This record gives sequence, C-alpha cells and structure tokens, in this order.
Amino acid sequence: MFRFLTAGESHGPALTAVIEGVPAGLTITAEPINVQLKRRQGGYGRGARQKIESDTAEILSGIRFGQAMGSPITLVVRNRDWANWTVKMSVEPLGEGEAPPEITVPRPGHADFTGMMKFGHDDLRNTLERSSARNTATLVAVGAVARILLAEFGISVVSHVVNIGGVKVNADNIDLRQVGALAEDSPVRVADKDAEAAIIAAIDAAKYRGDTLGGTFEVVALGLPVGLGSYTQWDTRIDGKLAQALMSIQAIKGVEVGIGFGAADVPGSQVHDAFYYDQAEGEEAAHFRRGSNNAGGTEGGISNGEPLVIRAAMKPIATLMKQLPSVNLQTKEGVPAFAERSDVCAVPAAAVVGEAMVAIVLADLMREKFGGDSIQEMRANYDSYQATIAVRTAQK
Amino acid sequence: MFRFLTAGESHGPALTAVIEGVPAGLTITAEPINVQLKRRQGGYGRGARQKIESDTAEILSGIRFGQAMGSPITLVVRNRDWANWTVKMSVEPLGEGEAPPEITVPRPGHADFTGMMKFGHDDLRNTLERSSARNTATLVAVGAVARILLAEFGISVVSHVVNIGGVKVNADNIDLRQVGALAEDSPVRVADKDAEAAIIAAIDAAKYRGDTLGGTFEVVALGLPVGLGSYTQWDTRIDGKLAQALMSIQAIKGVEVGIGFGAADVPGSQVHDAFYYDQAEGEEAAHFRRGSNNAGGTEGGISNGEPLVIRAAMKPIATLMKQLPSVNLQTKEGVPAFAERSDVCAVPAAAVVGEAMVAIVLADLMREKFGGDSIQEMRANYDSYQATIAVRTAQK
Amino acid sequence: MFRFLTAGESHGPALTAVIEGVPAGLTITAEPINVQLKRRQGGYGRGARQKIESDTAEILSGIRFGQAMGSPITLVVRNRDWANWTVKMSVEPLGEGEAPPEITVPRPGHADFTGMMKFGHDDLRNTLERSSARNTATLVAVGAVARILLAEFGISVVSHVVNIGGVKVNADNIDLRQVGALAEDSPVRVADKDAEAAIIAAIDAAKYRGDTLGGTFEVVALGLPVGLGSYTQWDTRIDGKLAQALMSIQAIKGVEVGIGFGAADVPGSQVHDAFYYDQAEGEEAAHFRRGSNNAGGTEGGISNGEPLVIRAAMKPIATLMKQLPSVNLQTKEGVPAFAERSDVCAVPAAAVVGEAMVAIVLADLMREKFGGDSIQEMRANYDSYQATIAVRTAQK
Amino acid sequence: MFRFLTAGESHGPALTAVIEGVPAGLTITAEPINVQLKRRQGGYGRGARQKIESDTAEILSGIRFGQAMGSPITLVVRNRDWANWTVKMSVEPLGEGEAPPEITVPRPGHADFTGMMKFGHDDLRNTLERSSARNTATLVAVGAVARILLAEFGISVVSHVVNIGGVKVNADNIDLRQVGALAEDSPVRVADKDAEAAIIAAIDAAKYRGDTLGGTFEVVALGLPVGLGSYTQWDTRIDGKLAQALMSIQAIKGVEVGIGFGAADVPGSQVHDAFYYDQAEGEEAAHFRRGSNNAGGTEGGISNGEPLVIRAAMKPIATLMKQLPSVNLQTKEGVPAFAERSDVCAVPAAAVVGEAMVAIVLADLMREKFGGDSIQEMRANYDSYQATIAVRTAQK
Repeated sequence: MFRFLTAGESHGPALTAVIEGVPAGLTITAEPINVQLKRRQGGYGRGARQKIESDTAEILSGIRFGQAMGSPITLVVRNRDWANWTVKMSVEPLGEGEAPPEITVPRPGHADFTGMMKFGHDDLRNTLERSSARNTATLVAVGAVARILLAEFGISVVSHVVNIGGVKVNADNIDLRQVGALAEDSPVRVADKDAEAAIIAAIDAAKYRGDTLGGTFEVVALGLPVGLGSYTQWDTRIDGKLAQALMSIQAIKGVEVGIGFGAADVPGSQVHDAFYYDQAEGEEAAHFRRGSNNAGGTEGGISNGEPLVIRAAMKPIATLMKQLPSVNLQTKEGVPAFAERSDVCAVPAAAVVGEAMVAIVLADLMREKFGGDSIQEMRANYDSYQATIAVRTAQK
Repeated sequence: MFRFLTAGESHGPALTAVIEGVPAGLTITAEPINVQLKRRQGGYGRGARQKIESDTAEILSGIRFGQAMGSPITLVVRNRDWANWTVKMSVEPLGEGEAPPEITVPRPGHADFTGMMKFGHDDLRNTLERSSARNTATLVAVGAVARILLAEFGISVVSHVVNIGGVKVNADNIDLRQVGALAEDSPVRVADKDAEAAIIAAIDAAKYRGDTLGGTFEVVALGLPVGLGSYTQWDTRIDGKLAQALMSIQAIKGVEVGIGFGAADVPGSQVHDAFYYDQAEGEEAAHFRRGSNNAGGTEGGISNGEPLVIRAAMKPIATLMKQLPSVNLQTKEGVPAFAERSDVCAVPAAAVVGEAMVAIVLADLMREKFGGDSIQEMRANYDSYQATIAVRTAQK
Repeated sequence: MFRFLTAGESHGPALTAVIEGVPAGLTITAEPINVQLKRRQGGYGRGARQKIESDTAEILSGIRFGQAMGSPITLVVRNRDWANWTVKMSVEPLGEGEAPPEITVPRPGHADFTGMMKFGHDDLRNTLERSSARNTATLVAVGAVARILLAEFGISVVSHVVNIGGVKVNADNIDLRQVGALAEDSPVRVADKDAEAAIIAAIDAAKYRGDTLGGTFEVVALGLPVGLGSYTQWDTRIDGKLAQALMSIQAIKGVEVGIGFGAADVPGSQVHDAFYYDQAEGEEAAHFRRGSNNAGGTEGGISNGEPLVIRAAMKPIATLMKQLPSVNLQTKEGVPAFAERSDVCAVPAAAVVGEAMVAIVLADLMREKFGGDSIQEMRANYDSYQATIAVRTAQK
Repeated sequence: MFRFLTAGESHGPALTAVIEGVPAGLTITAEPINVQLKRRQGGYGRGARQKIESDTAEILSGIRFGQAMGSPITLVVRNRDWANWTVKMSVEPLGEGEAPPEITVPRPGHADFTGMMKFGHDDLRNTLERSSARNTATLVAVGAVARILLAEFGISVVSHVVNIGGVKVNADNIDLRQVGALAEDSPVRVADKDAEAAIIAAIDAAKYRGDTLGGTFEVVALGLPVGLGSYTQWDTRIDGKLAQALMSIQAIKGVEVGIGFGAADVPGSQVHDAFYYDQAEGEEAAHFRRGSNNAGGTEGGISNGEPLVIRAAMKPIATLMKQLPSVNLQTKEGVPAFAERSDVCAVPAAAVVGEAMVAIVLADLMREKFGGDSIQEMRANYDSYQATIAVRTAQK
C-alpha cells in the first residue's frame, strides 16, 4: 500500500511528508523531486511568494545511496520565509503582550469560516495556515516519488490547461503524446499558442481589475496497463479514486473523465468506444484497438489500457485585491475581507498538483495489483501479467 | 465509522449489504428502505427488468423490535428472477455438457473487456454479473439506512435531473427546498414541466433509433451543520469524498460541486459567496447569511452550513439495440456487440443512487464528528456542538 | 486486500459474512467450508446447542461453477433454531404486551454490562446476541475461504490444545507436521493420549461442580514463505496482526509467539535461533537451516520461513451453572447471574477459531505481497519470488 | 481518527512522526514529550548509545502558542550521532570506492535475514537501520501526545517491570494507583525493592557472561470510562487492538490482559469478576463495584471502567557479546554473528514504549467514541456520556 501523511503550516518552519510503501531498490534522489516542486511554482499570474520560496525537498529517511530501502521516506520542504514568522507562528506559548492580534474576518471562498467553527478557533490564522494551498507542495513532492515508481513501468503523467477565465483552448487535434511537452513550454501550460496569448491577456486584464481567474486543466496518463482498479466494491474503482484525489486539491470544484459532462449531451451510439481487431497500412500484424477514447481510459472502474484523460475545474483564487463583503466574527460588523498579495491565476500550478494526485492514485493501484517489496519483484510481476495480456489480445 | 460491504451478482440469488457503525436505538424498519428501492426502479425509459424485480430488502441482523442494536445490519435483496438462472449462475460446478456457452464479445463502454483481462476470465459473464448497475440496489439500501440516521438531525437528501440527452432543465429559480418534491412527481425526475415534456420526447426518439441517452442530475442535501469534513489531510475533505462516492456509481463520468465547471469561466469577484450579518424586513434579529451559494455548501473541504449542491454526469447506457462494433476475443473476428433488452435512459434512477451515495458520505462524516454509540448519545453531542455554533454566530 | 465484515445475532435468522479480495479462478465450494464449521462445533464438553445447530454455509455470491469470480463472496449460516425466536428476536416492532421481559442482570465476564452502558441498552439481550461467541461461526467460514487460498501455496494451518484447566500437554517432542493430525483425532484436540484422558476427567469434574474450564491452544502454520509482514511501520508486523486476530476471539486473554512468555526467563544465548549452512547425512546438498525455532516463525515482524507457532489462552466459559454474584441494573438488588445450559469447556473449538483467524491474517498478507487478481497471476508472482529466494539461499 | 506514520533510520539524520487527529485547543509543548523520551532512555543495563543520544523532540507543525490547531503534528527527533554517519548512511549515491563494505551475516533474532529476503537487500544495513528498536523513540513521542490528550479526561498510563531474566517481582499487594510511581523510582522499573536488587544482580551477571536478558512488564491505565472498543466486529475490540499495539514493539513475544495465561489454570468460578452494589463502612452511598479485576479492565472487547491491566513479554536483546552462530549470505560460510556494543537488558525501556502504545490505542478509541474537533467539544461529549453512565449506575 502506498500511503502517506503530510503536515505543515503555510508559514511554519517546514512542510513534511512521510510516505510508506515505496518498493526497495527504486532509484530516488532529491533532484527529480525538486524538478516537480519547481514546476508547481511556475506559471504566469503567480504572486510574489513563489519567488520567495523556491522549494526544495530534503530527504530525511528511506533512501540510502540513492536507492529506496523499502522503509518510509520523509520529505521536508522548508519555508524560506520562516525567519519572519517565528513569533506569529511560535510553537511555544508567547509572553504576555507578545501575541499578534487575532484575525477574525473570514474570507469568502476560503476555509476561514468553516475551520473556525469546526475547530473552535477564535483566530482564523489557526485555520488558514493549514488550509492554505501551500500544502500542495508536499502533494507534489509525494507525487514526484509516485512518478518515479510509475516511470519504471513506462507510465508518464502530463497535463495541460484547457480553459482560463473562459478562454478555451482547442487541443482536440493535438496528439496526447505531445500535449504535455507543448504545455511545458508555455507560461500558462497551454498547448496551443493562439490560446496562450489570449489567456495571458485575460490574466493581465483580471490583475488590472483586482480580480482573479479560475480554469480547467487536463491530466493525461500514458502507458497504463489494463486492469488497475475494480468494480467489485464501490471504493475500489479507479475513476472514483481519481475523482477524490483531484477534488481534494484546494479550489477544485469539478472533475470529469474522458468525455465527462459532454456525455450528457450525445446519444450512446456516439459515446462508447468500439473495439476493432485489424491491421492498418504499414503495421506488421493485426491488433486490438479502440475506435475512440471517450471513456478516457477507464471502463467499469478499471483502466482499459488507453490513455487516461481526466479534467478538473479550478475556481478563481479566493483572495482578491477587489475586496469581497465579509463580517467580523467578533463584532459582527460588516467589513471587507482582507486583501493580500496573492496570485491572480494558479491554474497552471494546479495542473501540476493534479498530475501529482493522479500519479499518487496510480502508484497506489500499481502497488496493490503487482505487490512485491522490491522494484525487481514488482517488475517481474508486472512483466508476467503483461505477457498474459499480450497473449490474450494477440492474433489467434 | 459507518462502513459497509456489498455483494451479489446481477442474476445470482441475492444481493447483500452488511453495514457497521449504525448507532443503537435508531428506529429502522424495512419499509423506508423499500421506499428507496422502489424509487430506484422508477423513471421513464427503463427496460423490462425493473418490472420483474420490484426489489425489497430483508433485514437479517442488527435490528430488534424496530430499533438498531449497534450491531451490523444485514440487508438482503433477493433476485426474483433467480429461478431462471440457477444453471447459468450455479454456484456449484456443473456436469459435463451442462455449462452454457461462454460469452466472448465485450461490449464497448462496459467492464467486459477490462474485467476479463484483470481477472483472467474467458467468459465475460463472470465480469458483467458483478459490474452490472444492478448492484446499485444495495447502495440504495445502504443509503436508505444512512438517510434514516441523517433524518434524526434534520438532514434531508433530494435530487432532480437537469439534463437528459442534451435537453437542459432550467431549475435556477426553483427553491432548493422544493426541487426534490417537484422532481418526485415527474417520471424523469425533472422539476420543470416544460423540460419534462421535451425530455420524454427525446427518450422516445432515442428508443425509436435503438439508441440510449445520458444526462446530468443534481443532488441537494439540506440541513447540514457547518463542520463536516476537514482540510487537515487530503483524504479528509468532504468534497473529495463526495466526488469519489458519485464517480463510483456505474456510468458516471463527471462530478461538480456548486458552481462546478462554471467556475472556470467567471472571475473570482463573481464566484465567492460574500458574508453578511444583517436583518431583513420581517426578521426578528440580525443573523449571518451568505450572499450566494456558488460554493455549493463546502469551503475548504468542510461543509459550511449552506445547502450542499452537487451534480454528476451519466453517460448513455452502454447496452444498445443499435449494435456497436466489437471483437470476439477468442476468434478475433469483428462482430457486433450483443444487444439486449435494456433501459434507454437511467438518469432518473442514477439520481436516486446519487442521493444514496451522498447520504452515505454524510452519515459517515456525522458519525466521525459526533461519535457516540447510541442515537441518544450522538444527538446530545450534536446538540451541544450546534449550541456552540449558535452562540458564535449570534448577535453580539 | 482480503477484507470482510461479519454480521448476525446469536438467535437471529442467520449469520452473514461478506468477503472482498479473493482472487478469481480459485476453486471454492461449500463443502470445505462446512468441514470447518463442523470442526468448530466439536469437542468434548460442549453444551446442547452445538447439536441443534450443525452449521452449514450457503454461498450467495462470488462463486460460479465452483470458482471464485473475484467479486465479493457472501456466506450465510442459518440459525436452525430461528423458528423458536421469531418473537423474542423480531426485527419488526412488536404489538403492545408482546415484548418479552427485559434481561437486566449482567453476567460477570460477558459483554453484558459493558455493552449496555456503551450502547445505552436497557435489555441486555440487545448486547449478548451479538457479543456471543456464536459469531465465531462466521469467522471460521471466512477462515475456511482463507485456507483454500493458502492451500494453493502449500500453506496449512493446524492446531492443538496444550492446556485445559491446568492440565498441561507435553507436545514438545511431537513433530509439528504431525501435531495437527493427532489433535484432529482427539475429542479435546490434544495430541498426547495421556494428557487427553486427564483433560477429559478434568472437564467431567468441572461439569459436576457446575463450573467451567479454560485452557491454552497452539496454532501452527506450515509452508509459509519468508517475507510476510514488515517492520517498516508498527501496524505492518505479522506478529502484531496475529496477536490482534487471536485476542479478538471471544474469551481469549493472552497470545504468545514462539517461546512467548518463556523468553522472560532465559538468557539471550538460549533464545535466538542460530543460522547454519550445512549438509546432514542423507541430504543431497548443503542448505540453510535454523538451529531452533524459538522465534516461532517470525523475526522483525516478518515471517522467516520456519513454522509459525502461536498460542492463545482462553478464559473459562463465563456462563456457569454455579451462579456468580451480580446486580439487577434496574433495581440495584444483588442477585445471582443467570445460569444457562452452556458449554463446560470450549477450548478445542476456540483452537479451530484460532486457526481461522491465523488463516485470515496470512491470506491478507499473501494478497498484499503477491498481488494479482486471479489465482494464476498470484501464483506466478509467488513462484517468481520463491525462485529468487531459492537462488539467494542456495549453495554458492 | 488518531492516526500517524513514523519514519527514520537508526543512524540517519532524524526520526520523524506525523500525527493526524489531535483535537484543536489541546495544550501541547515539547517539554512533556521530552520527559517521555528521557524515560525511554533510562534503565539499568543500557548500552553506551543511550548516553550519546539524549533525545528531544522538535515540533515542526500543528502547534501554535502551545496549543494544537487540529492540523497534523510533526515531531522530529534528531540523531545526535549523525555527523559520524553521513557517508555510511548517505542519501545521495556515493562515488566509486566510497561505499562501505556490505554487511552480509544476519544476526539471529533480528530482522536481518527476513528483511534481506523480503526487500531484496544485499547489505543488511538497509534492513537493520529501520527494523532497529531506535524507532521506538517516535512511538514514545507519539504516545506522549496521546497521554496529553488522555490526561484531559483523567486517564493515566503507567508501567512496572514484573520479571527480568526469570527473577519475578511480586507486586500483587501493591495498589495499582501506586505501582507506577514506585517503579518510576527504580532503575529497573520494579515496584518492589527486594526484587529490584535481585534483578540488578541478574543483569550484572548476564553482562559478565556476555549475555542478555528479557523480561515481562505490566502496563496499567487508570481512569478509563466504560465503553471503549466494541464486540460488533472482530477488529473493533479494545483487547485485540492493545494486543497488536504491544506485540508490534520490537522483541515482544507475548501479551496478556488481566489474568491472562493464568486463566487456563483455574475454573470459571474463580475467574469472572462478580458485580456488587453495596456500601462499605465510611462510604456515603451504595455503589457498583466489582469483586475482582481478573478481566483486566475489558469485557467483551469493551473497557469496563476498571483499571486496564496488560502485560507483555520481551525476549532478550538479540545482539550479544557472546556471539551466536550465523552464515555469511554471500559466501555461505558459517561465521559468528557480529557482536556490538549494545544493551544487556532493555525491559524497563520497553515498558515505557508499552505505555506509549497503550496510550495511542486509548487515544484513538477516545477520539472514535467522543468525536469532536476541539478539546472543548470532545470534553463536552465525554461529560455528557459520563453523566448518563452515572445515572444508570447510581442508587435507584
């Protein structure tokens, strides 16, 4: 089982993740984890903090001489700005008069109000520090470890942005094997250059208005075997697990797989992906293929061997310069929610977090199906299964 | 913890659910469970099987004299057609020559292909029997128990259909407290009469073409306290849990909360729900209120006390009279997928299943937050918490 | 993951178990399950109920033509005495005056008092019906399925009784491969004939006195591979899982692995099992071996390839003819606890339940390490791993 | 849910624990955690390392101004000797020729052999670093947090040693409310001064012989409410959870609750704890009481309000100066297992770890039963339940 816990406050000393279930012998160093952390911090429209931070992961356990030992892996991402927060975020009790003033005006769209009520906090800093999207840095770090595992089996996870603030990207004609690389070159993770320019303009306009923008991104996983997930119990389905994982990212309000909400609008004869067994020109032999991939890589809660295609909708950043009406919870006076230096648009970053969450779910399912305690053992199991599938789908 | 397992094949003797974690003293009888089972079987556009079945639940454990004992509850839904399947679905090995022919042509859009590959089945009946949406009967039965628990706290879960086959329902002006009752009176669970007629026409047309239709439904939960779910760990969020639960229903391809995918298209200033503390004409006192409910009842992964609004998109039924291209997995010959008497549209039924899944998630979160082993203890805990919230949000 | 839930009251209509995680293709019929259920009901010193019951399992799902489909398996064990309990245990509310009198005098050593307090029951029947050891029938049924899985890998689980009422059995010189078969022939599951006679006499004497006897049994698992369980996290250890599983059987008060509590009395030089690599007379090649098995088959929370040896202590049956002092919880009067026809000694039966619990833990660990969704896939993975181990421990 | 993960190698830079599920508002500082860490390092017969280490916990998250925020708590225990291990335990790959020689001779009684086989390690350092009892420092740290939570409800967890190397302590006449304090004053955690001297002598003798000693310790929890744990499902029982928790400590080979294995030797009439409702001289009112506590505080898998009494047997330390026979796994030559500066006896320390594991289980069960997200909410729920119990057990 690939399981993990994350911890850490946005302005605390550090974020921490402990990961259990990585097979021994897997080559892991800090470098590919840091590459992912850096990707999360990029994107046009981000605020000043991303420049302060420049996150890197320190590995405190589980790896020796660049290889996993099978023991839990600890990743620590230090907050570089911690020196400025040692009083406001002091672990130890403060002396009289030292405490900073309590924050009591909840920001709409944040966990401020819900967290205060749930946990009984008077100072909403006690909530916002953990509910902050800052924690996605640990998810990306854990996801980076998951990606390293997946790469052993030829599985890659990429993403691109398909809508920001209503400016839509037409990526239908872009090969899924190219879309990730194209997006990687774009400051807004958009695979189409025309749309990229329009989106940058929209972000600039929103910034000028003191507003923020949401959007939609697509995560694609390539190289998946058929057979991950199950229909035997509701909580074993790959699509359900992916939906939870993506919806659990801060600000995500919708998730769809393959044709997604579009399935509501067209009849069944145009939705389901036909099976064929044929030989195209230039191919050596006849083989199985699907006529389309509206399913998005999963049928019956199980991966079907086609590319996994999943999209998520992110709401606009909830901290706006254009202040929203709120209420001081102590005085009950109407006051504007506090405005803070923040991002105008974080959809490209969210796409990177989305990749991480998808990678985590896939790594867990791979661990479950193929078992093993070392990467050698796991790979042997994988190869053995894939050989069976090849026989079953090969020419008679 | 409210946990459960379901079991049973579509044409086996019975479906079974075992539920653990229902507080002692809760009044439960078969009748309200059967009401829900019946609701699942309704809806215009369903096939012949729904008439054969007329599901009812038998309670085999956990209830005495109409009250929960705190012990696991067993619910059995017998398949009334079992007498016709005792050979085809025999538990015991058959004699030579008795075995029915294997089914080897996977239907696009079903678990047939993925299940055969994953589990190594030659006969895809070994897959379809469990992957069938027939199992949603147990989910509805478990959901009925969850609803009974929620009702103790004034929480209700309703649904209505908002799109079938591209015919959209405008329900924006219908009060969320009415929408469930209006839908209940409609054969297609539509709260708007004009749309209802257009949808029925669309279903008729699809049937005539041998085609099927999908759609979108909305589930609404009313009466939720603030504070269910958490942001402390990714897997504690209410929105993530709901997304998994809904996406895990057969044929669901998308889930969205509140404004959902619409959040990608509008700026933040139009999305986040302002806080107010004021007194409308005719109201006795000033009180907290939100200016809108684009969040759909959840902020920061926690219920915020507003109505929970969540939508899911269902793909069209994958068994079509208009046959889809497929391949015989044994011979590798191209053949049409087998066509079977089936539903044309099951979106209204899926909405009922959606209610059940939402109720299950909410019941679990209520159990987690309020603890207790008897309904009296749980209610005392709930009342105590609600009194605290009332004080905090009351006039100073 | 091999997971399951059980349900059912002692005098309700039926006991039910739902098992998830059995690989497809495994041959399973009711017969070997019934063999285990019968073994649980045997043993000298049992009361009248065991004769009434003669439990058998009905398979309601998960098996077709004698083979697992990979879907959940439902096992139902009907209570043959149910006809006499339809009023006392009615699921539906009773009419006025129909309710049987409440039982309000808790029996020492039972869950009567704790269950009433925890769940808020006034009538302790609402507790005793589920807390009853009757539920071990479902554990044995689930264990029977686990044993079938283990048998595919040459793993067997046996047991024998080593102490009843202070009469100890010296089984130190009996080969562990024989001890199960010897015990099987004994009415008290004792492998040594001299001890058997003394134990039977002790049971007779206790019965005459209106008293009951406890004892100790040993469960032995043969054929385990090295590598089940882990030290990486406290909750991954095989010994911890086994301890929980055995301690969770009704009336068990102690569990020990290998030398167990004896380890407290002797120095380290006499406890730890030396490694050798040598060739005995008549053997073909040198091989690894251990000088002893004080570890009982587990080192560092991981199976080490030696026989697993684990013992559990059972307290005497808590329902005695010789009545124990108690208190009527309604009147607060001191009254004797109610005496009921019951077993004098159930240690032999508990040993069978102990086997089941051990089999369940082992099946789960085998599923986790070797993964796979069909028995063929799982076996291929197992064989591949065992080949690796053979190379590593073979002669250089 | 009180859940946590621990991580860290014995000679790595640090040990880490992340704890989820601590209620907001609980007062927590490093000091009481450090007190527990220090207790773990004490005890007569410990080796040199305990002096090097002097563990302290650094809190990296979850606490602000000395109070829990409800977010995950990160505890880091740095290894003070890390500077000497940066090469041998380097996270990054080493240059050619820099790698230390592999260790290939497994020590009997350790995880060396099992870990190498399971994880495919050639160098057993990759196993021993995590399987080491060093990790119990994190368990003690987590347990310290659990104790702080329990203390809010008047629950305390203490321990004393009852046997070392066969020298038994008679503590039967010592009040359970005193036994912890008496043990605290003893270098071998023994509550009886005569036994203390004999035990110290036994440890000295073992050290002189190059041998090691195991023993038995008892953990006692006072102040528990009735109603923790359940009989409804096998994995909900408090005794089973405690057994797993204690058996999962390194070197533990046996666990018993209350009368434990002694229950096998005496008849039921002498085992089960009678109920009385009476008034002793000097008492104000009649009240419920039990005649004895052979059950050890749990009946039917549920705490019964009496002191929880649980014992565990620890095998002697497996690293001996008197070398045990082993085999070089690369050359297959018989060689002595390597001898290392180590403890002669760690039973007193294990008792402290045992307290921690018991506290962790109890904290989890308290969280489950009483729910709540803040300590205020949890306490209100607890008080409400206790008031109900008081009424039910009070004079009529």
